[in-house]
Amino acid sequence: MREILDAVADGELSPTAAEAELRGYARTEAGRFDAARKARTGIPEAVFAEGKTPAEVAAMTVTAVETTDSALVTRTDIDSADACRSLLADEFPEADVDYHERARTLVVHGSDYDPPDLDATVGVVTAGTVDAEAAGEAATVAEEMGATVERIEDVGVAGIARMFDNIDAIRGVDALVVAAGREGALPTVIAGLVDVPLVGLPVSSGYGHGGDGEAALAGMLQSCTPIMAVNIDAGFAAGAQAGLIARSVSAARTEG
Amino acid sequence: MREILDAVADGELSPTAAEAELRGYARTEAGRFDAARKARTGIPEAVFAEGKTPAEVAAMTVTAVETTDSALVTRTDIDSADACRSLLADEFPEADVDYHERARTLVVHGSDYDPPDLDATVGVVTAGTVDAEAAGEAATVAEEMGATVERIEDVGVAGIARMFDNIDAIRGVDALVVAAGREGALPTVIAGLVDVPLVGLPVSSGYGHGGDGEAALAGMLQSCTPIMAVNIDAGFAAGAQAGLIARSVSAARTEG
Amino acid sequence: MREILDAVADGELSPTAAEAELRGYARTEAGRFDAARKARTGIPEAVFAEGKTPAEVAAMTVTAVETTDSALVTRTDIDSADACRSLLADEFPEADVDYHERARTLVVHGSDYDPPDLDATVGVVTAGTVDAEAAGEAATVAEEMGATVERIEDVGVAGIARMFDNIDAIRGVDALVVAAGREGALPTVIAGLVDVPLVGLPVSSGYGHGGDGEAALAGMLQSCTPIMAVNIDAGFAAGAQAGLIARSVSAARTEG
Amino acid sequence: MREILDAVADGELSPTAAEAELRGYARTEAGRFDAARKARTGIPEAVFAEGKTPAEVAAMTVTAVETTDSALVTRTDIDSADACRSLLADEFPEADVDYHERARTLVVHGSDYDPPDLDATVGVVTAGTVDAEAAGEAATVAEEMGATVERIEDVGVAGIARMFDNIDAIRGVDALVVAAGREGALPTVIAGLVDVPLVGLPVSSGYGHGGDGEAALAGMLQSCTPIMAVNIDAGFAAGAQAGLIARSVSAARTEG
Amino acid sequence: MREILDAVADGELSPTAAEAELRGYARTEAGRFDAARKARTGIPEAVFAEGKTPAEVAAMTVTAVETTDSALVTRTDIDSADACRSLLADEFPEADVDYHERARTLVVHGSDYDPPDLDATVGVVTAGTVDAEAAGEAATVAEEMGATVERIEDVGVAGIARMFDNIDAIRGVDALVVAAGREGALPTVIAGLVDVPLVGLPVSSGYGHGGDGEAALAGMLQSCTPIMAVNIDAGFAAGAQAGLIARSVSAARTEG
Amino acid sequence: MREILDAVADGELSPTAAEAELRGYARTEAGRFDAARKARTGIPEAVFAEGKTPAEVAAMTVTAVETTDSALVTRTDIDSADACRSLLADEFPEADVDYHERARTLVVHGSDYDPPDLDATVGVVTAGTVDAEAAGEAATVAEEMGATVERIEDVGVAGIARMFDNIDAIRGVDALVVAAGREGALPTVIAGLVDVPLVGLPVSSGYGHGGDGEAALAGMLQSCTPIMAVNIDAGFAAGAQAGLIARSVSAARTEG
Amino acid sequence: MREILDAVADGELSPTAAEAELRGYARTEAGRFDAARKARTGIPEAVFAEGKTPAEVAAMTVTAVETTDSALVTRTDIDSADACRSLLADEFPEADVDYHERARTLVVHGSDYDPPDLDATVGVVTAGTVDAEAAGEAATVAEEMGATVERIEDVGVAGIARMFDNIDAIRGVDALVVAAGREGALPTVIAGLVDVPLVGLPVSSGYGHGGDGEAALAGMLQSCTPIMAVNIDAGFAAGAQAGLIARSVSAARTEG
Amino acid sequence: MREILDAVADGELSPTAAEAELRGYARTEAGRFDAARKARTGIPEAVFAEGKTPAEVAAMTVTAVETTDSALVTRTDIDSADACRSLLADEFPEADVDYHERARTLVVHGSDYDPPDLDATVGVVTAGTVDAEAAGEAATVAEEMGATVERIEDVGVAGIARMFDNIDAIRGVDALVVAAGREGALPTVIAGLVDVPLVGLPVSSGYGHGGDGEAALAGMLQSCTPIMAVNIDAGFAAGAQAGLIARSVSAARTEG
Repeated sequence: MREILDAVADGELSPTAAEAELRGYARTEAGRFDAARKARTGIPEAVFAEGKTPAEVAAMTVTAVETTDSALVTRTDIDSADACRSLLADEFPEADVDYHERARTLVVHGSDYDPPDLDATVGVVTAGTVDAEAAGEAATVAEEMGATVERIEDVGVAGIARMFDNIDAIRGVDALVVAAGREGALPTVIAGLVDVPLVGLPVSSGYGHGGDGEAALAGMLQSCTPIMAVNIDAGFAAGAQAGLIARSVSAARTEG
Repeated sequence: MREILDAVADGELSPTAAEAELRGYARTEAGRFDAARKARTGIPEAVFAEGKTPAEVAAMTVTAVETTDSALVTRTDIDSADACRSLLADEFPEADVDYHERARTLVVHGSDYDPPDLDATVGVVTAGTVDAEAAGEAATVAEEMGATVERIEDVGVAGIARMFDNIDAIRGVDALVVAAGREGALPTVIAGLVDVPLVGLPVSSGYGHGGDGEAALAGMLQSCTPIMAVNIDAGFAAGAQAGLIARSVSAARTEG
Repeated sequence: MREILDAVADGELSPTAAEAELRGYARTEAGRFDAARKARTGIPEAVFAEGKTPAEVAAMTVTAVETTDSALVTRTDIDSADACRSLLADEFPEADVDYHERARTLVVHGSDYDPPDLDATVGVVTAGTVDAEAAGEAATVAEEMGATVERIEDVGVAGIARMFDNIDAIRGVDALVVAAGREGALPTVIAGLVDVPLVGLPVSSGYGHGGDGEAALAGMLQSCTPIMAVNIDAGFAAGAQAGLIARSVSAARTEG
Repeated sequence: MREILDAVADGELSPTAAEAELRGYARTEAGRFDAARKARTGIPEAVFAEGKTPAEVAAMTVTAVETTDSALVTRTDIDSADACRSLLADEFPEADVDYHERARTLVVHGSDYDPPDLDATVGVVTAGTVDAEAAGEAATVAEEMGATVERIEDVGVAGIARMFDNIDAIRGVDALVVAAGREGALPTVIAGLVDVPLVGLPVSSGYGHGGDGEAALAGMLQSCTPIMAVNIDAGFAAGAQAGLIARSVSAARTEG
Repeated sequence: MREILDAVADGELSPTAAEAELRGYARTEAGRFDAARKARTGIPEAVFAEGKTPAEVAAMTVTAVETTDSALVTRTDIDSADACRSLLADEFPEADVDYHERARTLVVHGSDYDPPDLDATVGVVTAGTVDAEAAGEAATVAEEMGATVERIEDVGVAGIARMFDNIDAIRGVDALVVAAGREGALPTVIAGLVDVPLVGLPVSSGYGHGGDGEAALAGMLQSCTPIMAVNIDAGFAAGAQAGLIARSVSAARTEG
Repeated sequence: MREILDAVADGELSPTAAEAELRGYARTEAGRFDAARKARTGIPEAVFAEGKTPAEVAAMTVTAVETTDSALVTRTDIDSADACRSLLADEFPEADVDYHERARTLVVHGSDYDPPDLDATVGVVTAGTVDAEAAGEAATVAEEMGATVERIEDVGVAGIARMFDNIDAIRGVDALVVAAGREGALPTVIAGLVDVPLVGLPVSSGYGHGGDGEAALAGMLQSCTPIMAVNIDAGFAAGAQAGLIARSVSAARTEG
Repeated sequence: MREILDAVADGELSPTAAEAELRGYARTEAGRFDAARKARTGIPEAVFAEGKTPAEVAAMTVTAVETTDSALVTRTDIDSADACRSLLADEFPEADVDYHERARTLVVHGSDYDPPDLDATVGVVTAGTVDAEAAGEAATVAEEMGATVERIEDVGVAGIARMFDNIDAIRGVDALVVAAGREGALPTVIAGLVDVPLVGLPVSSGYGHGGDGEAALAGMLQSCTPIMAVNIDAGFAAGAQAGLIARSVSAARTEG
Repeated sequence: MREILDAVADGELSPTAAEAELRGYARTEAGRFDAARKARTGIPEAVFAEGKTPAEVAAMTVTAVETTDSALVTRTDIDSADACRSLLADEFPEADVDYHERARTLVVHGSDYDPPDLDATVGVVTAGTVDAEAAGEAATVAEEMGATVERIEDVGVAGIARMFDNIDAIRGVDALVVAAGREGALPTVIAGLVDVPLVGLPVSSGYGHGGDGEAALAGMLQSCTPIMAVNIDAGFAAGAQAGLIARSVSAARTEG
């Protein structure tokens, strides 16, 4: 502890970063940032932008970089992304900032950041264009955890030939995230053809009865081929768990 | 009317049959029998056996034969079927009685019955064994309406190759009823491959969230390929409407 | 394939149209357009405008015309319709563009387009004014599939005399779409009087318990006269399946 | 109070009846009997038999007769009815006991009972046989409140001609209870044709989505012609409120 | 009919009014107006303003006055009310226009209008301020049907003493509408104390589980004292049926 | 620990009781018994009998007595109660065994048991007879935690006078549990009149929409007077938390 | 009463305050203010700002101060808070006004106000930042009732170590309010570790299935350790009941 | 193919086994058995016993052994297990038959069966005794897929110390299945402490609102630490997917 306090005294460490090292989390105006989460669970602590002001998102993002040399922002719009860029330009001018508009994620890597690199691949499959946001969120998280991500897009069952055109790519990965809205049949169809762990990701498309992703979720839970699922639009959870599978497989490969 | 009353007076017509001719329906202890329904809507009035005693089912069945020379009983168990056979043996000893155990339907053709005969085919497809009852009910109704029925069984999406093995048969009919439980994906997949009117028939299999057919129904309503649906286990409705399509097509063929 | 590539080389075929011919679909910024859908299933691929920007809708629409000589846009507002007109004026100045404000559909026929023409009629019935949008969508789709569409409007059961005034028109068609919101009783009442295949189209009117079309949908699924149904406001599905019935009947007529 | 206590002392009044007079209710082993309810609200306190043993039902029934010279038992089966008869034969041998099997109600009038007699009629309409129990319960309650009850049966919308055959009878009453299950459309259709206060009584028929009367209830609440409703199978509530309307009308007639 | 056509020819009758007389309803841009409804069912046809533009509301309102000498607009805001006033000033300058801001209703009486006048009273009770809109709608409808309306406000069960202070007023009417949101207990409590027909009117207040009036509706349907109910916020239905009860009572008084 | 092991060696302590002392819980065939729960949370660990065989219930009960000198069994029927009595007669012949049939609870006090005795009172109020089971369960738990329990029964709002007759008793306690089914209005009404902490206990009575206690629960959560609630029929939770309040109050009294 | 009227005549008492003293409540334009509530139930009458205009909120707030020397406004935004400040500056310039932005509460103490002061502590625990509003509302109410409030923040189960760091503070209070959204597990975990009465406060965070607090509420009702709950976001109810427990404990301490 | 047919001709291969080899599946009276499933998806085809007669279960089981040298029966009771033993004793007397009563699974290994053997561990954790059946089903499936299964039982959050006692075992596995009913908090708590892929398995315990596992499922989907889930009681799906993760990890270990 003395070392940390000395570093603070010397101005080498901010009080926030020191708090994070000592207690595992840092407090900000917009809430607590669990800096130890990644070490404990393998999954990075993300800044969930929805319902926060651009200023709050930017402040949380800077705290993340301050304490973990990186940041992952989800459900962000362009305004919050701009606020992050601005504040980061002041506080961490050398950081790499990457905004994925369709996925609504923003990724920041500080100059000292040493990204994880796994020897494993996560496949992220979508049924249609409307699944791009949730699938993109899943892909970002898995990538940040070090997995290689393979995107296979627009292979919905309405034109099932396309899915068969891509079946070898789908079969070749270590873990699958399959996003689908409306009736959500795609994960069921794929799971009947592959022997890869598969996470269904229901998407909040559709209207009327069973709309907003409820039919897709129920269908994945009832799937006649056994699969796992996450909540509607929960790209983060799907990507994080697929990332954990990739970590385990990569570690096993490395052990060998 | 005089003719009918004379026939009653002469004992050539039962009072029940006379009432049916004059008013379109006959009253029994167990309720009204709408003898004119078939003429009006093309769909035979069925005796719904669930919740009735065997004696009530038998009485209604005899009334049906008395007024329309035929009967269609649905959701019947073996006890009610036996009660029907017994009572029919007394009242209409020459009638043909046909009990489909799996479909839980019983069909009676009186000696004077002239069954309709359509030049059209209804395909009845099932995803798995559990769909046999609802699909069988649909098949019985369509057959009674005069359609040729083509059964294609156990082609669920969990092993999608089987569905493709049968795709030509599926494409060859004039109307399709596709029964599926659990997540109910089969009608969606088939509808993306054929240009035949298609009625989804959700089946009350599955447990937990979305069980009892609710996920299948919601999935069919949300289907990314446009289809029609009936209520859970509503084989009668599916078969009757497919039968109406067959009637229209057959009439058009005959017109030509 | 060589022919297609030659045509691209000669500037006679756009790369998009060539992709569509070779693979059955074309990729755009706003997603995939399944150009082969119509041939495969008899139902045109529509551009679903809701949730897309006017520019995206216009781009998809142009792709549709480019690959299929026609386009069908649903759930569009006046802004997207205007964007389509603009872009089409540049890209396909000779195309016919038809915007149905109440139905929120836009139909485009390129100069080479040869519209289908069926010898069959689809009846589209509404209970009230509020059903006009969903019913209009159904009508547009059936028309685009070549059916003659007969509109029967505002015959809701609150003033049931009007329905009886129109019963002959209702009986005269080859397939019926009956749209109704609130308690959705109209399809049930009509189905008891006709022998025409009937698709109930529940509409998202009503408030409080069972509002947003849920009561109407449940009522159609529970109908004491057997009918088929589509999801709430799913005019496209209702029109497409009614169109398929019309196709079958028309083909049968022509066969004769 | 002294009079009552004297009557108890003289054996002219049971302690239970005395308690009921003094406090308005009597306590029994199976619960409290609110003897003053009828005077306060115009609606008789009923013994709800479901979930009680035959002995408990009989005991409550005797208490009712002891304190109010009459009893009304609902949701009773033949066993409880027999237990009532037995116990009444001992305790009140001169009482009239009337069991309605289909309505599952039992009515007891003690020898001193002076039944109310209203100059008003309640119409109780059913869509089909399955509605007989709930409708019968409503009819019994209205009759016990003194109304003349007009039964109009089996006029469901599947064969709407029958409803029109009975429309004059339906129009001629002072209050209507209209029972219907499945999609529950009958009250809506009738309410568009009459100017009589109308209580919709949804019945727990139907299966699948919206089954057990939920679709019927939702449909009545959403009715495009304004009506009132009670809960599913709540024949007692429907009959009691229709009975109150009849009381008001009868009182107004008598006033004149 | 000749008379009507002559009147049109002479400019004494508008074509719209003539259509209404001949067919019972008039068509406008914004939909059909059922001018015969009041005569048929005793309940005036209202213009439901929600979801219509001010111009549409005004046009429908003028049509109502043109065909029935009066108009009743519900769920209207100040903009639609102003549009009505403007258009009426042009078309029917002598009409009385009355806008109830809290009830969101607008009432128009043409110069020739002869309002109904019943010898009966409807009590409209509210639990709190939030119930004022739905209750006001009910009151307006009952008044337009000719009933005297007695308002008893803010007597919710949270401070039950207030309800008892008003119990004599509550008991003195011929029919009761009791509006309540949140848990909706007020109608249950009142119904245990009065012998007047009672319509519960659940109001869409409350948040969280059972919010938007669902708890209030369910509570009224489950009420341990038998009552009737209408849908959430369905002030029109509650007022219309209470108005029908008042009509019956008033007619009975007059008969005498 | 040595002491405990010595006691086991000497046969003074059973292995099960020793395990419970050392680890806080004991394992049985039918599951784990958390013997330390009472010390940790103030609430006794109960044996939940539903879904267990009589033999399993008896075994768990004996384990409870073995490790805590007492047992509390909930949701038990007469068969399980008899099995407990039998086994206890063998194993702990001096224990007091008390079975409450209506509450379906069984309480066992070993010969060395020193029951807690609080200087505080819990009021348990019921709306009707049907609430007796859940309320009885609550009362048993509170009593076992040492509270004096005051029962106030059958004071439902249908006859609200009775509630007022008992209001002083209701006001006099330190914590209230108010049980009610159907619409569940009683806790709301009482909470508007008292300043005592109040736990609403919804009961699974009622049928149709909102039945099985759902309306009562929703009503308590929406109560216009702020109250707390437990789940439907969760008498144990209601009694345990009321018992904790009584403990706090009693401790405060004793502190003084 | 004469005294009060004299005070009004002398201008020492406003008519509103006089009405409140005489009848227990005061009427304002925006509704009734139940000035006697605090005396009757121990819980202050709050002004619920949501759905009211700033002017209405300010008027109600002034009425509250006029009749009770204090005011508690909940669910208020900055605009309503400013409107209150303005009006209070005119009417009660000496009043203390305290706005809690995060809790969205505003508290006013008039110059004569004598706040209650309890010898008891309420702990208010949050799982995360998103719970701050509901928890803050609870804290404000408990404080206004005189309790000392201990805030323990951001101890959600995702990083359970933090909860254990704070367990002694959590154990040290007389009543607990534990706020949590998403899956709402925190109250369950804490209740297994403490012997303090505990009110679960579900918060409307989360999206998809079980979102808006429904999963949290259901989880608290199903909690495997018995707890109480209030509705989603019902901070007022949680704080008020915890305040009542604190009152009881404090009174018991003082008694001693 | 000739080889197979020769083997059939020689009686070395049954027609059923031949069909399975040639087409991938075998047809039986009770339905299709997908013998190729295991090869295709890595998950064995199970016989789901619920809803089948003992004879049907036994026939399917024998078919499984005939075509795959092994069988896995789920949701079986003792009667079906006995029927299997009997029939297997006749048909495959050398097979090993293993019935797990608590898990309700039956496993059969033929004499030629070569079970898979993975170098990976699946942890199966339960919150309480009631989770044993679903967890046991998961464990059986994972074992049959070759994983080592580590059982960690009864570590529910009500006594959270037990979970911490076992945290090292929980952390040491390659994939986790965590079963919990009621509020289902255990997977959330564990996932915050480990970096292992985790499948939540909600169990249908609990009563009242959110009962039958719905609260547990919703809680797992809303978990504030990202996890995956399967449907309520879907032990098969949880075990199968955990088994697939184990397969991947084992393959990666072996590759090295």
